[in-house]
Amino acid sequence: MNEKLERFLERSREIHDLTEIQQGLEWDQQVMMPRKGAAQRGAQQAALAGLIHARLTSPELGDLIRTLAEEDGLDETHKADVREAKRAWERATKIPARLVTERAQACALSQVAWEEARHNDDFEAFRPHLEKVIALTREMAAALEAPNAYDALLEDFEPGMTEEALRTLFGELKPELVTLLDKIKGAPNPPSQEPVLRHYPRSGQEAFSRRVMADMGYDLGAGRLDASAHPFTSGTFADVRITTRYDENFLNMALFGTIHETGHALYEQGLDPDRYRDPSGQACSLGVHESQSRFWENLIGRSRPFWKHYYAELRKAFPGVLDDVDLDAFYRAINVCQPSLIRVEADEVTYNLHIILRFELESALLAGKLEAGDLPEAWNSKMQELLGILPSTFREGVLQDIHWSAGLIGYFPTYALGNLYGAQFLEKLREDLPDLNERVSRGELGPVKEWLNTRIHVHGRRYLAPELCRKVTGKPLSIRPSVAYLTRKFGEIYGF
Amino acid sequence: MNEKLERFLERSREIHDLTEIQQGLEWDQQVMMPRKGAAQRGAQQAALAGLIHARLTSPELGDLIRTLAEEDGLDETHKADVREAKRAWERATKIPARLVTERAQACALSQVAWEEARHNDDFEAFRPHLEKVIALTREMAAALEAPNAYDALLEDFEPGMTEEALRTLFGELKPELVTLLDKIKGAPNPPSQEPVLRHYPRSGQEAFSRRVMADMGYDLGAGRLDASAHPFTSGTFADVRITTRYDENFLNMALFGTIHETGHALYEQGLDPDRYRDPSGQACSLGVHESQSRFWENLIGRSRPFWKHYYAELRKAFPGVLDDVDLDAFYRAINVCQPSLIRVEADEVTYNLHIILRFELESALLAGKLEAGDLPEAWNSKMQELLGILPSTFREGVLQDIHWSAGLIGYFPTYALGNLYGAQFLEKLREDLPDLNERVSRGELGPVKEWLNTRIHVHGRRYLAPELCRKVTGKPLSIRPSVAYLTRKFGEIYGF
Repeated sequence: MNEKLERFLERSREIHDLTEIQQGLEWDQQVMMPRKGAAQRGAQQAALAGLIHARLTSPELGDLIRTLAEEDGLDETHKADVREAKRAWERATKIPARLVTERAQACALSQVAWEEARHNDDFEAFRPHLEKVIALTREMAAALEAPNAYDALLEDFEPGMTEEALRTLFGELKPELVTLLDKIKGAPNPPSQEPVLRHYPRSGQEAFSRRVMADMGYDLGAGRLDASAHPFTSGTFADVRITTRYDENFLNMALFGTIHETGHALYEQGLDPDRYRDPSGQACSLGVHESQSRFWENLIGRSRPFWKHYYAELRKAFPGVLDDVDLDAFYRAINVCQPSLIRVEADEVTYNLHIILRFELESALLAGKLEAGDLPEAWNSKMQELLGILPSTFREGVLQDIHWSAGLIGYFPTYALGNLYGAQFLEKLREDLPDLNERVSRGELGPVKEWLNTRIHVHGRRYLAPELCRKVTGKPLSIRPSVAYLTRKFGEIYGF
Repeated sequence: MNEKLERFLERSREIHDLTEIQQGLEWDQQVMMPRKGAAQRGAQQAALAGLIHARLTSPELGDLIRTLAEEDGLDETHKADVREAKRAWERATKIPARLVTERAQACALSQVAWEEARHNDDFEAFRPHLEKVIALTREMAAALEAPNAYDALLEDFEPGMTEEALRTLFGELKPELVTLLDKIKGAPNPPSQEPVLRHYPRSGQEAFSRRVMADMGYDLGAGRLDASAHPFTSGTFADVRITTRYDENFLNMALFGTIHETGHALYEQGLDPDRYRDPSGQACSLGVHESQSRFWENLIGRSRPFWKHYYAELRKAFPGVLDDVDLDAFYRAINVCQPSLIRVEADEVTYNLHIILRFELESALLAGKLEAGDLPEAWNSKMQELLGILPSTFREGVLQDIHWSAGLIGYFPTYALGNLYGAQFLEKLREDLPDLNERVSRGELGPVKEWLNTRIHVHGRRYLAPELCRKVTGKPLSIRPSVAYLTRKFGEIYGF
């Protein structure tokens, strides 16, 4: 191998290892860290962020990237490595080290403040922290010198996506969802959610979730399951950890939360063993990541074939609880569609409306058309507009998500993209595996995992998300598969 | 403040923050990490160790240290900061970055191999890992260019201590312990350990341990308690975590293990809030650290006054279990003295003989007079010589401790030093608090913590350990207080 390429990969892998540490510290902060450790953790994260930034922006790496970008002899994979490293290098050199350090520290403190504020339902206690995070994020966007500030942030999560493209996609999607929701609201015989609101002891929930995780192919020797305030997946390849949260009076929360995070984890565990530390060996984008989690959570986990197999198991895990509920009633109960307050508990139809709300608010925040202090009111007015309901606490409203407290602005749209990608992938999977339903009905989840492993996971980010979508499905991303899927599924459930 | 001093402290604090991360990754590896994550963690630790080494050896820091070392205007504390940084800088510049990285990676892999080998009682599976660690440690000692290789390693754990000084101290101690042990062996009415070998459910052990930890003044808002294969304390100031291990048929393991680690934790939580990130604000030495843990474990936790208060509580925590055991029988049961195989379970009299064994083996390993493959035999022959008993498994012999797998050679003697320092501190504490026994009998542990906080913890490493010992007790370190304490205590228990 060419010596410069080797040095380039060595430097890149070192940066990757350091970002793994960063992620590990974040996991620890959410799951394990004692409360008073926040300031110290802030200092640690600041020191580490500064070092990573220095590595990312080192002139040596810049020279290697420039040289390799002009070289003809590289294969497709290494070309992709250079392309990915080049984008990261260019972005990093534009942001001053001082700002990176300051923002990392502010975000660490702000996350702890958010957790307390959420617990005490006290937006004002969180506001100054959020203001600081927003100010530093605006400063960061400005430093990136993109024509559009929101696009500058998006590139970290979904390279190639733009605020304008999102407005177009969401513009097409909104009326479709509203029409669908209207039909659902007018349906004569809506399903009842009551069965999933019964008492499900936590230990049974955890045991059943672990059973499903294992069947999906998640390797617990290379991961772990814990509880945290906001469920998430952390780490890569041989150390991929997921968290969930339990509500003994709402089965969906931990059950579908765990399936969701396991979908993320399978992506990370499924990366190419030889390339997972390389720039193009890592997961493609957050949108594609979310397509994996929501694929498992909704397209598989909330499907009738899945429960044909698992419903008997579930009844065994909670003796007596579901004796009077047949498979059909249970399937309908987990697919109730109704406007609700909490994004992570939203059904498949309304979910993207929660995203559209956040997208509109954060794009206004970033443009300076909205300030942190305006958020509670703006939140409520959009809830009224899009979903027709209002939260009575901050906890069920503007304080429900961790993202903004962690400086993750431009991140929410990737959830909606995940829904769209997922539905488009499912269409293709059905072509390749015509007996998909029969297999899932027998509890055979292996072929699904394998299809995702070989079509998506192993590529990493060799292709950008739009290209990957075309490679996998033969078509550019569209809202059509998702709308068709939702209309078919909910038409059957609600009878229209 | 002088600008160079400020820059020097800034650089030093950054290094401190990075070593906190390093320690956090080690904690995670022992307590939380999935099994297959070992290679990845090795790469992370290697990358981080390389960065810290680069920081520690940076010419800028070297210049700052040289300039400040010659400056007259510094106060005593900042002089100590410069002295500590100077020693670290000189040591670090002698070890090549390549060796630092390679050794960190080898130690990470070796720890995992040790855990498996210990589980499978398979020394041969561990041997190649240990060989590599020893080879790299010899190489490191050689790079340090000290007249004596073992002294070069000791300086990392107990600055100022030498192999020769240890031989002298241990040379005085050995006949005293042997004489004492002979008297104990010949005593007519030895206590029975049976009461602590009854069945103690884990949940009760954890609850009681947490109660004692809290009474000792450990702040759980700045720490946590978990289980791990080898108990340890990790972190500093506002994030100090301890681990323990439970044996439902042996009360001492978790109970005294937790009190021991809490003693370490109180030291870290008790550092000066304004200086804990500074070179002289950190804990003094491992020997002094161990004096704190063993002080609480043995001098307080295994004392009669302590159990005058806690015995009723303990009986309540395990209903019915100790109904036929009075306070005196329980006090005698936790103070049984007899040669045994496992260091961490050894009594106060035989403990230091376990250390002398390890000291002699590791000093021979380092000198090249012994190789890893010789260890099982050498271990057994020393066990026979010093304690008169033989392990029947590797697990109870050479594989019992994590230290060598982690590259910690030169560390064991600090445990014995901790015993000696602790007994000398106790003599002084009794002078200052003549009613110590009465207070402890009433469960008042606050004055003990406060005395340790103000006399020892808050100083950090402003003074080197021998100087600290003189400041606190007015005398240089001696084996006399320890021997006098042991003779008095065990004379009373065994009746000689």
